[in-house]
Amino acid sequence: MEHGRVSMKVSLNQKILSRNDQCALNNRDYFAKNGTLCLNVISSPGSGKTTLLARTIQDMQGRLTIAVVEGDIRTDHDAQRIRQTGAEAVQIETEGACHLSAGQVGTALRQMKAKEKDVIFIENVGNLVCPSAFDLGEAGRVVLLSIPEGDDKPAKYPGTFAGAEIILINKIDLMDYIEFRLERVLADIHAVNPDATVLQVSATTGQGLEAWYDWLIDRRKAAAQRS
Amino acid sequence: MEHGRVSMKVSLNQKILSRNDQCALNNRDYFAKNGTLCLNVISSPGSGKTTLLARTIQDMQGRLTIAVVEGDIRTDHDAQRIRQTGAEAVQIETEGACHLSAGQVGTALRQMKAKEKDVIFIENVGNLVCPSAFDLGEAGRVVLLSIPEGDDKPAKYPGTFAGAEIILINKIDLMDYIEFRLERVLADIHAVNPDATVLQVSATTGQGLEAWYDWLIDRRKAAAQRS
Repeated sequence: MEHGRVSMKVSLNQKILSRNDQCALNNRDYFAKNGTLCLNVISSPGSGKTTLLARTIQDMQGRLTIAVVEGDIRTDHDAQRIRQTGAEAVQIETEGACHLSAGQVGTALRQMKAKEKDVIFIENVGNLVCPSAFDLGEAGRVVLLSIPEGDDKPAKYPGTFAGAEIILINKIDLMDYIEFRLERVLADIHAVNPDATVLQVSATTGQGLEAWYDWLIDRRKAAAQRS
Repeated sequence: MEHGRVSMKVSLNQKILSRNDQCALNNRDYFAKNGTLCLNVISSPGSGKTTLLARTIQDMQGRLTIAVVEGDIRTDHDAQRIRQTGAEAVQIETEGACHLSAGQVGTALRQMKAKEKDVIFIENVGNLVCPSAFDLGEAGRVVLLSIPEGDDKPAKYPGTFAGAEIILINKIDLMDYIEFRLERVLADIHAVNPDATVLQVSATTGQGLEAWYDWLIDRRKAAAQRS
Protein backbone atom coordinates (compact mmCIF):
# COMPACT_ATOMS: atom_id res chain seq x y z
CA MET A 1 0.00 0.00 0.00
CA GLU A 2 2.75 2.38 0.94
CA HIS A 3 4.55 1.69 -2.29
CA GLY A 4 1.33 2.08 -4.21
CA ARG A 5 0.86 5.54 -2.80
CA VAL A 6 4.43 6.57 -3.44
CA SER A 7 4.30 5.17 -6.94
CA MET A 8 1.27 7.21 -7.91
CA LYS A 9 3.16 10.40 -7.16
CA VAL A 10 6.24 9.33 -9.08
CA SER A 11 5.62 9.52 -12.78
CA LEU A 12 9.22 10.30 -13.69
CA ASN A 13 11.57 8.88 -11.10
CA GLN A 14 14.67 10.36 -12.63
CA LYS A 15 13.26 13.84 -12.11
CA ILE A 16 12.31 13.05 -8.51
CA LEU A 17 15.77 11.70 -7.76
CA SER A 18 17.29 14.90 -9.14
CA ARG A 19 14.96 16.95 -6.98
CA ASN A 20 16.12 14.96 -3.93
CA ASP A 21 19.73 15.61 -4.94
CA GLN A 22 19.01 19.34 -5.31
CA CYS A 23 17.47 19.47 -1.82
CA ALA A 24 20.43 17.48 -0.47
CA LEU A 25 22.79 20.06 -2.00
CA ASN A 26 20.86 22.87 -0.27
CA ASN A 27 21.02 21.04 3.07
CA ARG A 28 24.75 20.39 2.64
CA ASP A 29 25.43 24.07 1.87
CA TYR A 30 23.45 25.09 4.93
CA PHE A 31 25.39 22.77 7.23
CA ALA A 32 28.74 23.85 5.75
CA LYS A 33 27.90 27.53 6.21
CA ASN A 34 27.14 26.99 9.92
CA GLY A 35 29.92 24.51 10.65
CA THR A 36 27.30 21.99 11.71
CA LEU A 37 28.15 18.31 11.44
CA CYS A 38 25.18 16.40 10.01
CA LEU A 39 25.13 12.61 10.31
CA ASN A 40 22.55 10.29 8.73
CA VAL A 41 21.91 7.37 11.08
CA ILE A 42 20.78 4.17 9.36
CA SER A 43 19.91 0.68 10.65
CA SER A 44 17.28 -2.04 10.83
CA PRO A 45 14.27 -1.38 13.06
CA GLY A 46 15.25 -1.81 16.71
CA SER A 47 19.06 -1.68 16.42
CA GLY A 48 19.15 1.03 19.09
CA LYS A 49 19.40 4.29 17.12
CA THR A 50 17.21 6.35 19.47
CA THR A 51 18.81 4.89 22.60
CA LEU A 52 22.26 5.74 21.22
CA LEU A 53 21.27 9.31 20.31
CA ALA A 54 19.51 10.01 23.64
CA ARG A 55 22.55 8.77 25.57
CA THR A 56 24.98 10.64 23.33
CA ILE A 57 23.09 13.90 23.89
CA GLN A 58 23.17 13.40 27.67
CA ASP A 59 26.83 12.37 27.83
CA MET A 60 27.93 15.22 25.53
CA GLN A 61 26.09 17.92 27.50
CA GLY A 62 28.34 20.97 27.83
CA ARG A 63 30.62 19.68 25.07
CA LEU A 64 28.37 19.47 22.00
CA THR A 65 24.99 21.04 21.23
CA ILE A 66 22.99 18.35 19.46
CA ALA A 67 19.58 18.19 17.75
CA VAL A 68 17.80 15.33 16.00
CA VAL A 69 15.57 15.02 12.95
CA GLU A 70 13.50 11.88 13.54
CA GLY A 71 12.05 9.76 10.73
CA ASP A 72 9.33 7.19 11.33
CA ILE A 73 6.48 5.81 9.30
CA ARG A 74 4.10 6.55 12.15
CA THR A 75 4.21 8.00 15.72
CA ASP A 76 6.38 10.72 17.28
CA HIS A 77 7.63 8.45 20.09
CA ASP A 78 11.27 8.89 19.13
CA ALA A 79 11.15 12.70 19.04
CA GLN A 80 9.51 12.59 22.48
CA ARG A 81 12.33 10.39 23.78
CA ILE A 82 14.93 12.83 22.44
CA ARG A 83 13.12 15.86 23.91
CA GLN A 84 13.22 14.20 27.33
CA THR A 85 16.99 14.77 27.25
CA GLY A 86 16.36 18.52 26.81
CA ALA A 87 17.53 18.51 23.17
CA GLU A 88 15.55 19.80 20.22
CA ALA A 89 13.92 17.17 17.98
CA VAL A 90 11.61 17.39 14.97
CA GLN A 91 9.61 14.33 14.01
CA ILE A 92 8.87 13.50 10.38
CA GLU A 93 6.13 10.91 9.91
CA THR A 94 6.63 9.47 6.43
CA GLU A 95 3.14 7.87 6.40
CA GLY A 96 4.27 4.74 4.65
CA ALA A 97 7.45 5.83 2.88
CA CYS A 98 10.43 3.62 3.66
CA HIS A 99 13.09 6.36 3.95
CA LEU A 100 13.51 10.09 4.54
CA SER A 101 13.98 12.50 1.63
CA ALA A 102 16.27 15.55 1.56
CA GLY A 103 13.25 17.82 1.11
CA GLN A 104 11.66 16.51 4.32
CA VAL A 105 14.93 17.12 6.17
CA GLY A 106 15.10 20.68 4.79
CA THR A 107 11.59 21.37 6.09
CA ALA A 108 12.50 19.94 9.51
CA LEU A 109 15.62 22.16 9.69
CA ARG A 110 13.43 25.25 9.27
CA GLN A 111 11.40 24.11 12.29
CA MET A 112 14.38 24.10 14.66
CA LYS A 113 17.21 26.39 15.70
CA ALA A 114 19.50 24.47 13.39
CA LYS A 115 22.20 27.15 13.11
CA GLU A 116 22.99 26.93 16.81
CA LYS A 117 23.80 23.22 16.76
CA ASP A 118 27.21 21.60 16.64
CA VAL A 119 25.79 18.28 15.50
CA ILE A 120 22.49 17.37 13.85
CA PHE A 121 21.63 13.69 13.67
CA ILE A 122 19.08 12.50 11.15
CA GLU A 123 17.60 9.26 12.48
CA ASN A 124 16.29 7.62 9.33
CA VAL A 125 13.34 5.20 9.09
CA GLY A 126 14.34 1.78 10.45
CA ASN A 127 15.27 -0.01 7.24
CA LEU A 128 18.60 -1.53 6.21
CA VAL A 129 17.93 -1.12 2.47
CA CYS A 130 16.15 1.95 1.13
CA PRO A 131 17.58 4.86 3.20
CA SER A 132 21.06 4.20 1.85
CA ALA A 133 19.90 5.18 -1.66
CA PHE A 134 18.94 8.74 -0.74
CA ASP A 135 21.40 11.56 -0.07
CA LEU A 136 20.02 13.87 2.62
CA GLY A 137 22.91 16.35 2.54
CA GLU A 138 24.71 14.70 5.43
CA ALA A 139 28.48 14.84 5.92
CA GLY A 140 28.57 11.13 6.66
CA ARG A 141 26.58 8.05 7.57
CA VAL A 142 26.49 6.16 10.84
CA VAL A 143 25.29 2.58 10.39
CA LEU A 144 24.25 0.50 13.40
CA LEU A 145 24.21 -3.29 13.50
CA SER A 146 23.00 -4.88 16.73
CA ILE A 147 24.17 -8.26 17.97
CA PRO A 148 20.70 -9.92 17.95
CA GLU A 149 20.33 -9.21 14.21
CA GLY A 150 22.98 -11.79 13.45
CA ASP A 151 26.45 -11.86 11.97
CA ASP A 152 25.34 -12.30 8.35
CA LYS A 153 23.97 -8.80 7.82
CA PRO A 154 27.00 -7.01 6.26
CA ALA A 155 27.19 -9.77 3.62
CA LYS A 156 23.45 -9.67 2.96
CA TYR A 157 23.05 -5.87 2.89
CA PRO A 158 26.41 -4.75 1.44
CA GLY A 159 25.17 -1.45 -0.03
CA THR A 160 24.29 0.11 3.31
CA PHE A 161 27.54 -0.99 4.98
CA ALA A 162 29.59 0.17 1.99
CA GLY A 163 28.23 3.70 2.37
CA ALA A 164 29.02 4.13 6.08
CA GLU A 165 31.74 6.37 7.50
CA ILE A 166 31.39 4.72 10.90
CA ILE A 167 29.73 1.42 11.85
CA LEU A 168 28.64 0.83 15.42
CA ILE A 169 28.18 -2.80 16.46
CA ASN A 170 25.60 -2.20 19.17
CA LYS A 171 24.12 -4.26 22.04
CA ILE A 172 27.54 -5.79 22.63
CA ASP A 173 26.29 -6.53 26.18
CA LEU A 174 24.11 -9.31 24.67
CA MET A 175 27.13 -11.20 23.28
CA ASP A 176 26.98 -13.71 26.14
CA TYR A 177 23.41 -14.75 25.30
CA ILE A 178 23.54 -14.89 21.50
CA GLU A 179 25.74 -16.70 19.00
CA PHE A 180 27.51 -13.99 17.01
CA ARG A 181 30.77 -14.40 15.10
CA LEU A 182 32.36 -10.98 15.45
CA GLU A 183 35.34 -11.90 13.27
CA ARG A 184 33.02 -12.79 10.42
CA VAL A 185 31.25 -9.42 10.68
CA LEU A 186 34.53 -7.51 10.75
CA ALA A 187 35.80 -9.41 7.71
CA ASP A 188 32.56 -8.87 5.76
CA ILE A 189 32.57 -5.15 6.58
CA HIS A 190 36.22 -4.88 5.56
CA ALA A 191 35.42 -6.56 2.23
CA VAL A 192 32.87 -3.89 1.24
CA ASN A 193 34.21 -0.90 3.17
CA PRO A 194 37.86 -1.11 4.30
CA ASP A 195 37.93 2.58 5.31
CA ALA A 196 35.04 2.55 7.78
CA THR A 197 35.66 3.10 11.47
CA VAL A 198 34.14 0.13 13.30
CA LEU A 199 33.35 0.32 17.02
CA GLN A 200 31.78 -2.14 19.44
CA VAL A 201 29.37 -0.43 21.81
CA SER A 202 26.36 -0.83 24.05
CA ALA A 203 24.12 2.22 24.07
CA THR A 204 22.32 0.71 27.07
CA THR A 205 25.28 -0.04 29.37
CA GLY A 206 27.59 2.63 27.92
CA GLN A 207 30.31 0.12 27.02
CA GLY A 208 32.61 1.41 24.27
CA LEU A 209 30.89 4.80 23.94
CA GLU A 210 34.00 6.83 24.78
CA ALA A 211 35.52 5.92 21.40
CA TRP A 212 32.28 7.01 19.70
CA TYR A 213 32.34 10.33 21.54
CA ASP A 214 36.00 10.92 20.62
CA TRP A 215 35.17 10.20 16.99
CA LEU A 216 32.18 12.55 17.13
CA ILE A 217 34.13 15.44 18.67
CA ASP A 218 36.96 15.07 16.15
CA ARG A 219 34.51 14.83 13.28
CA ARG A 220 32.64 17.95 14.43
CA LYS A 221 35.95 19.87 14.74
CA ALA A 222 36.80 18.98 11.14
CA ALA A 223 33.35 20.16 9.98
CA ALA A 224 33.70 23.47 11.85
CA GLN A 225 37.20 24.11 10.47
CA ARG A 226 35.96 23.63 6.91
CA SER A 227 33.12 26.14 7.31
CA MET B 1 21.88 3.24 -5.48
CA GLU B 2 19.50 0.36 -5.28
CA HIS B 3 16.53 2.66 -5.63
CA GLY B 4 18.19 4.44 -8.49
CA ARG B 5 18.46 1.20 -10.40
CA VAL B 6 14.89 0.18 -9.68
CA SER B 7 13.64 3.63 -10.57
CA MET B 8 15.23 3.59 -14.01
CA LYS B 9 13.21 0.51 -14.92
CA VAL B 10 9.93 1.93 -13.66
CA SER B 11 8.66 4.55 -16.03
CA LEU B 12 4.98 3.86 -15.34
CA ASN B 13 4.59 2.47 -11.86
CA GLN B 14 0.87 1.82 -12.20
CA LYS B 15 1.57 -0.57 -15.05
CA ILE B 16 4.31 -2.35 -13.10
CA LEU B 17 2.08 -2.75 -10.06
CA SER B 18 -0.57 -4.31 -12.29
CA ARG B 19 2.01 -6.68 -13.72
CA ASN B 20 2.97 -7.72 -10.18
CA ASP B 21 -0.71 -8.28 -9.40
CA GLN B 22 -1.11 -10.38 -12.56
CA CYS B 23 1.87 -12.56 -11.58
CA ALA B 24 0.46 -12.83 -8.04
CA LEU B 25 -2.84 -14.03 -9.49
CA ASN B 26 -1.01 -16.71 -11.50
CA ASN B 27 0.90 -17.85 -8.41
CA ARG B 28 -2.31 -17.94 -6.35
CA ASP B 29 -4.08 -20.06 -9.00
CA TYR B 30 -1.13 -22.43 -9.09
CA PHE B 31 -1.12 -22.92 -5.31
CA ALA B 32 -4.93 -23.37 -5.21
CA LYS B 33 -4.80 -26.01 -7.95
CA ASN B 34 -2.24 -28.04 -6.00
CA GLY B 35 -3.68 -27.51 -2.54
CA THR B 36 -0.38 -25.95 -1.50
CA LEU B 37 -0.40 -23.46 1.36
CA CYS B 38 1.83 -20.50 0.50
CA LEU B 39 2.87 -18.13 3.29
CA ASN B 40 4.78 -14.87 2.84
CA VAL B 41 7.14 -14.38 5.79
CA ILE B 42 7.98 -10.75 6.58
CA SER B 43 10.12 -9.12 9.28
CA SER B 44 13.02 -6.80 10.00
CA PRO B 45 16.50 -8.13 9.24
CA GLY B 46 17.54 -10.61 11.91
CA SER B 47 14.16 -11.36 13.52
CA GLY B 48 14.78 -15.08 13.05
CA LYS B 49 12.89 -15.96 9.86
CA THR B 50 15.41 -18.51 8.58
CA THR B 51 15.92 -20.08 12.01
CA LEU B 52 12.14 -20.46 12.37
CA LEU B 53 11.74 -22.01 8.93
CA ALA B 54 14.68 -24.43 9.29
CA ARG B 55 13.35 -25.63 12.66
CA THR B 56 9.77 -25.88 11.38
CA ILE B 57 10.91 -28.05 8.46
CA GLN B 58 12.80 -30.38 10.81
CA ASP B 59 10.03 -30.61 13.41
CA MET B 60 7.34 -31.18 10.75
CA GLN B 61 9.26 -33.97 9.00
CA GLY B 62 6.85 -36.79 8.11
CA ARG B 63 3.86 -34.50 8.70
CA LEU B 64 4.31 -31.69 6.14
CA THR B 65 6.44 -31.44 2.99
CA ILE B 66 7.85 -27.94 2.98
CA ALA B 67 9.93 -25.87 0.54
CA VAL B 68 11.22 -22.30 0.76
CA VAL B 69 11.69 -19.45 -1.70
CA GLU B 70 14.42 -17.28 -0.20
CA GLY B 71 14.74 -13.54 -0.90
CA ASP B 72 17.91 -11.62 -0.11
CA ILE B 73 19.64 -8.61 -1.57
CA ARG B 74 22.89 -10.58 -1.76
CA THR B 75 24.19 -14.09 -0.88
CA ASP B 76 22.50 -17.51 -0.92
CA HIS B 77 23.32 -18.23 2.74
CA ASP B 78 19.68 -18.66 3.73
CA ALA B 79 18.89 -21.14 0.94
CA GLN B 80 21.98 -23.12 2.01
CA ARG B 81 20.73 -23.18 5.62
CA ILE B 82 17.33 -24.46 4.47
CA ARG B 83 18.91 -27.14 2.23
CA GLN B 84 20.86 -28.44 5.22
CA THR B 85 17.52 -29.62 6.61
CA GLY B 86 16.98 -31.69 3.45
CA ALA B 87 14.25 -29.41 2.11
CA GLU B 88 14.18 -27.79 -1.28
CA ALA B 89 15.06 -24.07 -1.40
CA VAL B 90 15.47 -21.58 -4.25
CA GLN B 91 17.39 -18.37 -3.58
CA ILE B 92 16.42 -15.13 -5.26
CA GLU B 93 19.08 -12.43 -5.03
CA THR B 94 17.29 -9.11 -5.56
CA GLU B 95 20.56 -7.23 -6.16
CA GLY B 96 19.46 -4.13 -4.33
CA ALA B 97 15.67 -4.34 -4.46
CA CYS B 98 14.04 -4.06 -1.04
CA HIS B 99 11.32 -6.71 -1.52
CA LEU B 100 10.42 -9.77 -3.63
CA SER B 101 8.05 -9.47 -6.60
CA ALA B 102 5.41 -11.99 -7.66
CA GLY B 103 7.22 -12.54 -10.96
CA GLN B 104 10.43 -13.53 -9.14
CA VAL B 105 8.45 -15.98 -7.02
CA GLY B 106 6.82 -17.47 -10.14
CA THR B 107 10.26 -18.04 -11.65
CA ALA B 108 11.48 -19.70 -8.44
CA LEU B 109 8.45 -22.03 -8.37
CA ARG B 110 9.38 -23.33 -11.82
CA GLN B 111 12.83 -24.20 -10.44
CA MET B 112 11.50 -26.53 -7.75
CA LYS B 113 9.10 -29.45 -7.43
CA ALA B 114 6.45 -27.05 -6.17
CA LYS B 115 3.45 -29.29 -6.88
CA GLU B 116 4.64 -31.91 -4.41
CA LYS B 117 4.75 -29.53 -1.44
CA ASP B 118 2.19 -29.11 1.31
CA VAL B 119 3.57 -25.74 2.34
CA ILE B 120 5.76 -23.23 0.51
CA PHE B 121 7.22 -20.42 2.56
CA ILE B 122 8.41 -17.27 0.84
CA GLU B 123 11.03 -15.68 3.07
CA ASN B 124 10.96 -12.06 1.96
CA VAL B 125 13.87 -9.60 2.09
CA GLY B 126 14.47 -8.47 5.69
CA ASN B 127 12.52 -5.20 5.72
CA LEU B 128 9.55 -4.22 7.86
CA VAL B 129 8.20 -1.72 5.32
CA CYS B 130 8.36 -2.45 1.59
CA PRO B 131 7.50 -6.18 1.33
CA SER B 132 4.05 -5.57 2.79
CA ALA B 133 3.08 -3.52 -0.27
CA PHE B 134 3.55 -6.37 -2.78
CA ASP B 135 1.18 -9.30 -3.21
CA LEU B 136 3.14 -12.45 -4.11
CA GLY B 137 0.10 -14.72 -4.49
CA GLU B 138 0.38 -16.03 -0.93
CA ALA B 139 -2.59 -17.31 1.08
CA GLY B 140 -1.48 -15.34 4.11
CA ARG B 141 1.34 -13.44 5.75
CA VAL B 142 3.43 -14.43 8.74
CA VAL B 143 5.03 -11.41 10.43
CA LEU B 144 7.83 -11.88 12.95
CA LEU B 145 8.76 -9.38 15.65
CA SER B 146 11.71 -10.29 17.85
CA ILE B 147 12.09 -9.13 21.44
CA PRO B 148 15.39 -7.22 20.90
CA GLU B 149 13.72 -5.01 18.26
CA GLY B 150 11.70 -3.32 20.99
CA ASP B 151 8.05 -3.01 21.95
CA ASP B 152 7.33 0.08 19.83
CA LYS B 153 7.44 -1.62 16.43
CA PRO B 154 3.72 -2.42 15.82
CA ALA B 155 2.90 1.27 16.50
CA LYS B 156 5.71 2.50 14.26
CA TYR B 157 5.15 0.06 11.37
CA PRO B 158 1.36 -0.43 11.44
CA GLY B 159 0.94 -1.35 7.77
CA THR B 160 2.96 -4.54 7.99
CA PHE B 161 1.29 -5.71 11.21
CA ALA B 162 -2.17 -4.86 9.84
CA GLY B 163 -1.63 -7.22 6.90
CA ALA B 164 -0.57 -10.29 8.92
CA GLU B 165 -2.68 -13.41 9.41
CA ILE B 166 -0.35 -14.59 12.18
CA ILE B 167 2.25 -12.65 14.17
CA LEU B 168 5.06 -14.50 15.93
CA ILE B 169 6.75 -12.67 18.78
CA ASN B 170 10.11 -14.39 18.50
CA LYS B 171 13.22 -14.68 20.72
CA ILE B 172 10.96 -14.82 23.78
CA ASP B 173 13.92 -16.53 25.54
CA LEU B 174 15.64 -13.12 25.62
CA MET B 175 12.84 -11.52 27.70
CA ASP B 176 14.94 -11.80 30.87
CA TYR B 177 17.75 -9.71 29.42
CA ILE B 178 15.84 -6.98 27.61
CA GLU B 179 13.17 -4.48 28.66
CA PHE B 180 10.10 -5.32 26.59
CA ARG B 181 6.50 -4.44 27.47
CA LEU B 182 4.57 -7.37 26.02
CA GLU B 183 1.19 -5.88 26.98
CA ARG B 184 1.97 -2.76 24.99
CA VAL B 185 2.83 -4.83 21.91
CA LEU B 186 -0.33 -6.91 22.20
CA ALA B 187 -2.46 -3.76 22.57
CA ASP B 188 -0.81 -2.04 19.59
CA ILE B 189 -1.24 -5.14 17.41
CA HIS B 190 -4.89 -5.43 18.47
CA ALA B 191 -5.45 -1.78 17.52
CA VAL B 192 -4.40 -2.31 13.89
CA ASN B 193 -5.25 -6.00 13.47
CA PRO B 194 -7.74 -7.47 15.97
CA ASP B 195 -8.13 -10.71 13.95
CA ALA B 196 -4.47 -11.76 13.84
CA THR B 197 -3.31 -14.86 15.68
CA VAL B 198 -0.46 -13.78 17.97
CA LEU B 199 1.97 -16.35 19.40
CA GLN B 200 5.02 -16.02 21.62
CA VAL B 201 7.83 -18.29 20.48
CA SER B 202 11.54 -18.91 20.47
CA ALA B 203 12.75 -20.48 17.24
CA THR B 204 16.09 -21.16 18.97
CA THR B 205 14.87 -22.94 22.14
CA GLY B 206 11.62 -24.27 20.66
CA GLN B 207 9.45 -22.53 23.26
CA GLY B 208 5.87 -22.01 22.04
CA LEU B 209 6.41 -23.66 18.66
CA GLU B 210 3.73 -26.35 19.18
CA ALA B 211 1.00 -23.70 18.81
CA TRP B 212 2.66 -22.50 15.60
CA TYR B 213 2.77 -26.07 14.24
CA ASP B 214 -0.89 -26.65 15.14
CA TRP B 215 -1.83 -23.44 13.35
CA LEU B 216 0.26 -24.46 10.31
CA ILE B 217 -1.28 -27.93 10.05
CA ASP B 218 -4.82 -26.55 10.37
CA ARG B 219 -4.13 -23.83 7.84
CA ARG B 220 -2.67 -26.33 5.36
CA LYS B 221 -5.72 -28.58 5.78
CA ALA B 222 -8.00 -25.66 4.95
CA ALA B 223 -5.92 -24.85 1.84
CA ALA B 224 -6.04 -28.50 0.66
CA GLN B 225 -9.80 -28.76 1.18
CA ARG B 226 -10.41 -25.66 -0.93
CA SER B 227 -8.39 -27.01 -3.87
